[in-house]
Amino acid sequence: MREEWVKGRTGANVTQRHYARAGTITEEMRYAAAQEGVCPEFVRAEIARGRAILPANIRHTNLRPMLIGTNFRCKVNANLGNSTTTSDIAAEQEKLAVALRYGADTVMDLSTGGDVRAIREAILAHCPVPLGTVPLYEAMARVESPEELTPALLLEVIEAQARQGVDYMTIHAGLLREYVPLACRRLTGIVSRGGAILARWMAAHQQQNPFYTHFDAICEIFQAYDVSFSLGDGLRPGCLADANDEAQFAELRTLGELTARAWEHDVQVMVEGPGHVPFHLIAENLRQEKELCFEAPFYVLGPVVTDIAPGYDHITSAIGGTMAAYHGAAMLCYVTPKEHLGLPDADDVREGIIAHKIAAHAADVARGRPGARDRDDQMARARFHFDWRQQFALALDPETAQARRDASLPEADPHDARFCSMCGPQFCAMRLSHEVRALTEPEVSNP
Amino acid sequence: MREEWVKGRTGANVTQRHYARAGTITEEMRYAAAQEGVCPEFVRAEIARGRAILPANIRHTNLRPMLIGTNFRCKVNANLGNSTTTSDIAAEQEKLAVALRYGADTVMDLSTGGDVRAIREAILAHCPVPLGTVPLYEAMARVESPEELTPALLLEVIEAQARQGVDYMTIHAGLLREYVPLACRRLTGIVSRGGAILARWMAAHQQQNPFYTHFDAICEIFQAYDVSFSLGDGLRPGCLADANDEAQFAELRTLGELTARAWEHDVQVMVEGPGHVPFHLIAENLRQEKELCFEAPFYVLGPVVTDIAPGYDHITSAIGGTMAAYHGAAMLCYVTPKEHLGLPDADDVREGIIAHKIAAHAADVARGRPGARDRDDQMARARFHFDWRQQFALALDPETAQARRDASLPEADPHDARFCSMCGPQFCAMRLSHEVRALTEPEVSNP
Repeated sequence: MREEWVKGRTGANVTQRHYARAGTITEEMRYAAAQEGVCPEFVRAEIARGRAILPANIRHTNLRPMLIGTNFRCKVNANLGNSTTTSDIAAEQEKLAVALRYGADTVMDLSTGGDVRAIREAILAHCPVPLGTVPLYEAMARVESPEELTPALLLEVIEAQARQGVDYMTIHAGLLREYVPLACRRLTGIVSRGGAILARWMAAHQQQNPFYTHFDAICEIFQAYDVSFSLGDGLRPGCLADANDEAQFAELRTLGELTARAWEHDVQVMVEGPGHVPFHLIAENLRQEKELCFEAPFYVLGPVVTDIAPGYDHITSAIGGTMAAYHGAAMLCYVTPKEHLGLPDADDVREGIIAHKIAAHAADVARGRPGARDRDDQMARARFHFDWRQQFALALDPETAQARRDASLPEADPHDARFCSMCGPQFCAMRLSHEVRALTEPEVSNP
Repeated sequence: MREEWVKGRTGANVTQRHYARAGTITEEMRYAAAQEGVCPEFVRAEIARGRAILPANIRHTNLRPMLIGTNFRCKVNANLGNSTTTSDIAAEQEKLAVALRYGADTVMDLSTGGDVRAIREAILAHCPVPLGTVPLYEAMARVESPEELTPALLLEVIEAQARQGVDYMTIHAGLLREYVPLACRRLTGIVSRGGAILARWMAAHQQQNPFYTHFDAICEIFQAYDVSFSLGDGLRPGCLADANDEAQFAELRTLGELTARAWEHDVQVMVEGPGHVPFHLIAENLRQEKELCFEAPFYVLGPVVTDIAPGYDHITSAIGGTMAAYHGAAMLCYVTPKEHLGLPDADDVREGIIAHKIAAHAADVARGRPGARDRDDQMARARFHFDWRQQFALALDPETAQARRDASLPEADPHDARFCSMCGPQFCAMRLSHEVRALTEPEVSNP
């Protein structure tokens, strides 16, 4: 459908923000508004205001447009991509299929090894959701060490990826040279790959961050294809002890400045957030981002709320993610059980997605989004009426739910039993509840 | 050790609350104080005030005493026990071993089928943590239907279990007859097994809850062995739609009244809480319990924050549990991935425990308990120095962490690699961080 929509989009600026500010409701806005159950004019206004983005490169024509913003459903991103030690195109395709199946709202290709361009091409061809990248990784794959990077190479890679159809790019433009000493005093220094590469470059060249010095040139490329910024937090904390420190908030202030600068170019912006943050400090991150970055959508990685659970960081992250989304985060970047240990496989991708779909949904319910609780209520009704088929159909992961039930109740017809093996028929509270209702209030019909 | 301690404990009242109120610091208080890193007098005062309990039946002599209270580390309970369809003594022993290995602070034996007394005996013999039960289940196992239960049978079972050494018992004394119609109007009615059985009994006999009418008799049994009340919430919500409703809070008010009554008998009390609660309504539960039950320890089941994730309810519960503990819950009852689907096996027990140890720990950190973050900081240091052995040693589940790393990095010596397969050596931010530190601030030593 989108091939028709983008036909007339020519000129120096084809961003959704550009159209929104001109008062135009695009087909993409209309489509995304229907998905959210809101009116298109509200979508236009939110994009114009900068409080939401609609990441949609005009070259990504198989895209189903969607919105990222605090006034819309909280979204979940899945990171795909190989590393220099692991994975190949087929494996990445499988991970993409799993991510989409379980509801990833966007995916990022973070490949750093092999033919990153070919992997991205393969992903884009099967990707109906917005695709994000970190162009610095491809640039790094073309040199031997961080010092050899040049501003020209970075711009070349960004332009090539924009032409390829990438919808948003992580650009670590806020990590200024003067902030690096702040990070050196931390317990875990810099834990962002992009941030560490840039810090290495700045230390070697004694020059300012090239993404910062060439920010306007990047904006011009982004205008021409409608690539959205995902302003990277190269100084996000890598452990609880480093959370909410001066390094982190100094960078966030610069990200706010860059948000305003990108908006002047009518380029769409979201801002990346931590990372590792104790539960009680999460709200403060949202408050600061909102204030310093003018309510641009906040896209957080977790945050994980403890450092002591390697192997279970999808859970530590779902906890922090719920709290962040409750306080207004617009998108959660998933964390898988492999975080801190290795590159995720397809199973890890599934577990990461589900954990963060739970977090995003729990926050949508808590924020009182219209209709957010409907599916929960349907599940409650299906449970009360022992409608197992419906329960599985409503589950975030029907196969796993059914497998777990069948495993412990092999002899019964899984669709008809009016109990489960947890309590057995004699102790089933819901079965008893029906009897009590019949005895107590025969006139009350089932809700 | 405890056999010596309890030798002189005779008389009608041997509860820790009785001694605490008399100004006596028992050996149990001293032991538990050392575990918490606080002074024994503070422990005595918290128990006397009713803000903490030290569940320790004088017959449970292999017990290592511990505290449950909002001013102490948040604890995690693991539910064991068979149902009428599944499990046996050997399987329950295995689940107990797994629960203890991964750090369960108390366990409950919820067996409802087979020889429940023998299962409990076997668990108690190997149980250094407090054991809880729901005596109603054993009583039910002795009759054909709920109507046949009698107050005499209930008291007989409670006395027998107290004599056996059970440390705390769930008593659903707050579910009054007049509250049942409130629950009948709900989406999922009554989802507590004990609550549903009692509602059935009251509806059939047109009489008040026997646990309520015989509450003083129960207190007298509890005094003689030091059994703590876990006042059951038979009307806890079973879905988001039913959360924080009049049925739930009516029962909570009665639980507050009963808390005061038990305290008059110098019996220790904690109060059970939900259940299924949307994230934004969790704090209100803690506020109400604190006010209505005079800060008696609140022991919550989850709460799960969405109904749509069967198969992953250890995660939905860890999210709610973190929020509840952050707002003062003293103990979290774990929920396993099998919740709503079947009886957990040993693997489910491990996943349930770890998820809730994460929740309890994250809340301890967030509440600023002295020393709570130490292990996180040690982990951060181990990560920054690529000390994998130390990382695994500090992990909540060392075997799983190591297995997940080894799976994706089979060729390297897992203990020496200064990177992992997630980023690979060239893109390792921490490795680059060390280089940046050396270039930027050579004088800064490693923290």
